[in-house]
Amino acid sequence: MRLVTYESASSVRLGVLHGDTVVDPARVLRAERAARRGSSAAGDAPEVPAEMVAFFEGGAEARGLAERALAAAGAAASRGQELVDDGHPAVLSQADVRLLAPVPRPRRIRDYLTYTQHAAGSGLKVPPAFEAMPICYKCNVETVIGPDEPLLWPSYTAQLDFELELGFFTSGGGRDLTPKEAAERIAGVTIFNDVSARDIQFFEMSLTIGPSKGKDFCTAMGPCVLTIDEVDEWAVQMSASVNGEVWASGSTKERQFSFAEVLAWASLDETVYPGEFFGLGTVGGGCGLELDRWIRPGDVVELAASGVGVLRNPVGQRKTPPDGAGVASYQGSPEVHVK
Amino acid sequence: MRLVTYESASSVRLGVLHGDTVVDPARVLRAERAARRGSSAAGDAPEVPAEMVAFFEGGAEARGLAERALAAAGAAASRGQELVDDGHPAVLSQADVRLLAPVPRPRRIRDYLTYTQHAAGSGLKVPPAFEAMPICYKCNVETVIGPDEPLLWPSYTAQLDFELELGFFTSGGGRDLTPKEAAERIAGVTIFNDVSARDIQFFEMSLTIGPSKGKDFCTAMGPCVLTIDEVDEWAVQMSASVNGEVWASGSTKERQFSFAEVLAWASLDETVYPGEFFGLGTVGGGCGLELDRWIRPGDVVELAASGVGVLRNPVGQRKTPPDGAGVASYQGSPEVHVK
Repeated sequence: MRLVTYESASSVRLGVLHGDTVVDPARVLRAERAARRGSSAAGDAPEVPAEMVAFFEGGAEARGLAERALAAAGAAASRGQELVDDGHPAVLSQADVRLLAPVPRPRRIRDYLTYTQHAAGSGLKVPPAFEAMPICYKCNVETVIGPDEPLLWPSYTAQLDFELELGFFTSGGGRDLTPKEAAERIAGVTIFNDVSARDIQFFEMSLTIGPSKGKDFCTAMGPCVLTIDEVDEWAVQMSASVNGEVWASGSTKERQFSFAEVLAWASLDETVYPGEFFGLGTVGGGCGLELDRWIRPGDVVELAASGVGVLRNPVGQRKTPPDGAGVASYQGSPEVHVK
Repeated sequence: MRLVTYESASSVRLGVLHGDTVVDPARVLRAERAARRGSSAAGDAPEVPAEMVAFFEGGAEARGLAERALAAAGAAASRGQELVDDGHPAVLSQADVRLLAPVPRPRRIRDYLTYTQHAAGSGLKVPPAFEAMPICYKCNVETVIGPDEPLLWPSYTAQLDFELELGFFTSGGGRDLTPKEAAERIAGVTIFNDVSARDIQFFEMSLTIGPSKGKDFCTAMGPCVLTIDEVDEWAVQMSASVNGEVWASGSTKERQFSFAEVLAWASLDETVYPGEFFGLGTVGGGCGLELDRWIRPGDVVELAASGVGVLRNPVGQRKTPPDGAGVASYQGSPEVHVK
């Protein structure tokens, strides 16, 4: 099942992608009940959560209701009947809605470096720790964008880059999870474009405490969450295209740790919660840095993952440094460029 | 003004430390108004926010009301009158309340490395980037503890350490702030014990993307927020004691950047919000790593800052690694110890 967060008529709700439509499972079931009773009162039968993380937490029950809604929407379509809930259509054309990031503000975002080729290809020394345990950097939950929104080009970088990544959302929380327990708490996957300002990223990472200005300004996610029952985590085919030309392709095969091992490790002596996002790092070769090819303002970046779809974002224009903002001693000077 | 978040009779509220009492400014003003009207109806005069971040956002108006409340509490005390709001005392003895972390779950926590001596003393190579711009690592907002709570000793470390730090909370948000604008958005300071598991911290930092298991399990903050009008940011005296013996002392003088410069830099091409916390890094010599002295379970760590008070935490017992939890390949092996 391909879950989306969609915006229509100013409301933001959970939907299920079905062909070229977005089915709103909560509205479908309400519309169906109201139609059955011949009234607009939908009654108090079980509701499908209309928000992504609540849907994850709803587990098998929420999933079962969403499947019932898909069946009901199909049956209504074959009768030529339009399902309406409280004046709102319960099934919409994809063309009529805006897809947002699946979880517009995840509770936490961590991005693990689990692909050997990317670690080596990015010029990082690959230390023994890389094989001993999953290691992450912590991302900014405040700057997540969805499909079709422009990738922000900060004023302080001359070297913007994309990163082709897959990651998963948690459906449940816990602490000190075994990998088996962790596996039961994974909701599904989405595509993650970990947009990076390479010049400043490596300049600040020289202190070894991680990137911040180099990555915190923007990350893109979407277009949907492919539920985990439909994911073979070692065989997702991925590709990155710029202006329609394929720059990189690969798969999720060559990684150090399973999804469940990453989550179990994260939960050791530290509680994890539903709605957290775990990036698995850049697929080998899946960024401009490794290819020494660089995106420019106005380009269109499309990241694809089998089953999930395509996350498409145009590249924004470089911001102008505002007068007196920031700190004078760093001005994106050319000597900190990485190549 | 020394602001606290206190817990009493299961409610968590903003208080002001005054001598050995905690004055609840919202309750004082409500009690006073009710007494004046001879009824328990407090009416709808302006209320003081009862939560820390809302109080920060309330700015000069909230501050003015809190000052009025302190004066009213003083006047009532000198009359021998007890102020009661809806059955709850409006002035409590410090001994009768539990102080929590000033902001129990800050919106974000970043910790900047701004003291030269700590950077060098911790064995980090100090690169040119350290002087060019403020650099941070991103902390876990889910694991903040307050005064007197035990510092968590994770199962996977043999080398727990404290860090003596001061940091500030934001009172307002913004984007592309100048240092002057940033200065107007700083609420006040508190003490920050950036508890660290040194063995695994440096092991994972070998990948240069920052610490996570080495720091994310626990951070302590408190006991209060000293409002910025009472802070000379270059002259806060600080010390760290273990079991009553002073291990380290220093001041906030030898830093790279002002509070305002740190916040302005953080806001460049990236929105900051009220209630975020910015650590300024460890005061030179302010951790066991630099001293090669190590805390043990059962010790008591006290971090002091002039004007703020003392943040006291006992050191917890080391957790037992749960059966099958985490990832088998890292077991806190001795060869990853840093000294």
